[in-house]
Amino acid sequence: QGTRDHPPAQAALRERLLSAVVSCFKRHGAAAIDTPVLELRETLIGKYGEGTKLIYELQDQGGELLALRYDLTVPFARYLAMNKVTKMKRYHVAKVYRRDNPATTRGRYREFYQCDFDIAGQFDPMIPDAECLKIVHEILSDLQLGDFVIKVNDRRILKGVFAVCGVPESKFIPACSTVDKLDKVPWEEVRSEMVGEKGLSPEAADHIGEYVQLHGGLDLIERLLQDPKLSQNKLAKEGLGDMKLLFEYLTLFGITGKISFDLSLARGLDYYTGVIFEAVLLQQENERVEEPVSVGSVAGGGRYDGLVGMFDPKGRKVPCVGVSIGIERIFSILEQRLEASGEKLRTTETQVLVATPQKDLLAARLKLISELWDAGIKAEMLYKKDPKLLKQLQYCEDTGIPLAAIVGEQELADGVVKLRDVATREEVRM
Amino acid sequence: QGTRDHPPAQAALRERLLSAVVSCFKRHGAAAIDTPVLELRETLIGKYGEGTKLIYELQDQGGELLALRYDLTVPFARYLAMNKVTKMKRYHVAKVYRRDNPATTRGRYREFYQCDFDIAGQFDPMIPDAECLKIVHEILSDLQLGDFVIKVNDRRILKGVFAVCGVPESKFIPACSTVDKLDKVPWEEVRSEMVGEKGLSPEAADHIGEYVQLHGGLDLIERLLQDPKLSQNKLAKEGLGDMKLLFEYLTLFGITGKISFDLSLARGLDYYTGVIFEAVLLQQENERVEEPVSVGSVAGGGRYDGLVGMFDPKGRKVPCVGVSIGIERIFSILEQRLEASGEKLRTTETQVLVATPQKDLLAARLKLISELWDAGIKAEMLYKKDPKLLKQLQYCEDTGIPLAAIVGEQELADGVVKLRDVATREEVRM
Repeated sequence: QGTRDHPPAQAALRERLLSAVVSCFKRHGAAAIDTPVLELRETLIGKYGEGTKLIYELQDQGGELLALRYDLTVPFARYLAMNKVTKMKRYHVAKVYRRDNPATTRGRYREFYQCDFDIAGQFDPMIPDAECLKIVHEILSDLQLGDFVIKVNDRRILKGVFAVCGVPESKFIPACSTVDKLDKVPWEEVRSEMVGEKGLSPEAADHIGEYVQLHGGLDLIERLLQDPKLSQNKLAKEGLGDMKLLFEYLTLFGITGKISFDLSLARGLDYYTGVIFEAVLLQQENERVEEPVSVGSVAGGGRYDGLVGMFDPKGRKVPCVGVSIGIERIFSILEQRLEASGEKLRTTETQVLVATPQKDLLAARLKLISELWDAGIKAEMLYKKDPKLLKQLQYCEDTGIPLAAIVGEQELADGVVKLRDVATREEVRM
Repeated sequence: QGTRDHPPAQAALRERLLSAVVSCFKRHGAAAIDTPVLELRETLIGKYGEGTKLIYELQDQGGELLALRYDLTVPFARYLAMNKVTKMKRYHVAKVYRRDNPATTRGRYREFYQCDFDIAGQFDPMIPDAECLKIVHEILSDLQLGDFVIKVNDRRILKGVFAVCGVPESKFIPACSTVDKLDKVPWEEVRSEMVGEKGLSPEAADHIGEYVQLHGGLDLIERLLQDPKLSQNKLAKEGLGDMKLLFEYLTLFGITGKISFDLSLARGLDYYTGVIFEAVLLQQENERVEEPVSVGSVAGGGRYDGLVGMFDPKGRKVPCVGVSIGIERIFSILEQRLEASGEKLRTTETQVLVATPQKDLLAARLKLISELWDAGIKAEMLYKKDPKLLKQLQYCEDTGIPLAAIVGEQELADGVVKLRDVATREEVRM
């Protein structure tokens, strides 16, 4: 349940998509790493907030207690700490596992790919953070997914907001995950969850409401920096200062048009400590597809300066910032778009079919195809001793093979091959 | 235990290796598919002989009972049956899981990649089987792993041998897995396991010994076809007839020099029904490496005509033959060879570092690098506001970036960029 096979057409589309994402990561100088799908259970527990209950655990068959990775970020932090790496720009494209309620039409699965890019190391503020946003912008633009917006916030600003609204620190993280629902449900519902489930006072909730419904750009940052209460809070002030710097860098990158400083963005995961962001696609007015997939967030990420330290025996911290591309949701869109266009994606790359027009020529086919393979040419033949020529040409048309190399008795006698262009039916002897 | 992280240098080497293997699969016209790492427990149970006890099972957290895939062959068969596919040539490169005793220096892990190529469908005999052997030959030659031999046998011949030696049919599979150890232990040990653990009579064991120690080529096939007992056995006769045909095709491919018909080859898995094969590297006499890794088998496969039918409600069979490349063992060899050569593999593809020679030029760097990224150029910069030029050039040398694009005050004033070849120190303004 919640997993799927990828038949060739889907696998080919996925390969095209993943290779576009990986190209971007490589363009930004990232190196690849790989980590096991299995992690120690203790590595994952307590890193994902409410997500922890969705972790797949393995049976205790003797030995270590194992679980399937829930994301690629925690394994990356564990990797850095274990190998005492203090500086690294890496990407990782791999499957992760969540025992979530699947919603397959919206691209939500229990096994799905993540495409992560992260920068670890102590650097001058906001330079790596700005690059992560640039990457999201490049990928979403490259893939021509339509209009999008990247919401940006900072955990320190949120913490400051909670503090000045009188929320005790112990309730920051639960309050965060409630605020994070603001993109899906109206403020009233969020407010009642805060007051009810999370135990905040109605006054605190109302006060929070005034802040978290704000969004804008540099102007909003400036306004909040002048906010009499918020500007007195150390964390909020730090966060707002960095947000201003971030917008400065994003202006130099020329991408502020798609960036929205949005105080309702909270993100569910425990480990974020600074900048957080999330990209959402905007509904097209003139969608070609009749019922467009509702896709929600297609990329997200943020800064997590404390996670690596949790895996280091001495607690040594390595500041990190990273982005994860929500490839499954993007895949759902591209798949639907391909279907609507009627375009047929080739699933193989075969250049030439080795064919014979008469019987008893299997040996000639085997000899020729072997030569082609050895020369690096992508070649196929039908696995029949005496296939009909028409069937062989039909196979080319069905699978998109552009050329047929035909050896008949005459060609064998003359020491030539007849090369046929399947589409135009033109033939040359060579 | 038995898993490993791949740091960038290893990940880069692995990518190079996998792409060589995938190129070969594509050259032979295969399409990619992908299946989940998770399979239903019942799908895997009873398919792997003694391997079944090595399957990783997931905890029962409600819902289906799941396990991690043990290989890519059973999931492929399950895929074909579920989707009623009766004809397909596919490759699949992915990780599989076995709770085996790890022997990491020999490249044996609990999580490891498999690279599988399989041909499903009803075809004329031995044509797809011969192609699988051609593929093994191409890959091992391409990778320049040194001399190798591909052992070939047929489960039908083995069954015939057991039958004429008086072994009851119920003991065929256990006897197979004992015979399969002949490449690692001497005949005496195999014999005593047959007589002791597997309960064969001493006479039957001795009789089997006369056959399974034979290996050769076409001559041996001809001799066994004349063998008074074996030639009377229907299965053995079929197997030997097909083996002869296989050698004919392999002769046309020009690869019989590396093929050995070896009656001791049995392979451990339950599902094989016809041709089986296994490639082993031969120890080099003049190994450059002082202590060469003992690697054993680097590829294996065979025909499994009954497996798909086990997953079809009506038992409809789809004949299959396939090959799996033992990428981890090959990786161990290439890794050791790279280490011995002292060659340093680049882990990134960055073409140019954007650098500044004076202070307060971060904005200029950000603007330029953004233009480069947008133009598809792989570019990096240091994440510092005011890095020293020397540090920037040092970074190029450390990571193999060939060019530095330098913008200083003068360049900004002149509207140019200074492009520096890091190795030769040549500079041009442009």
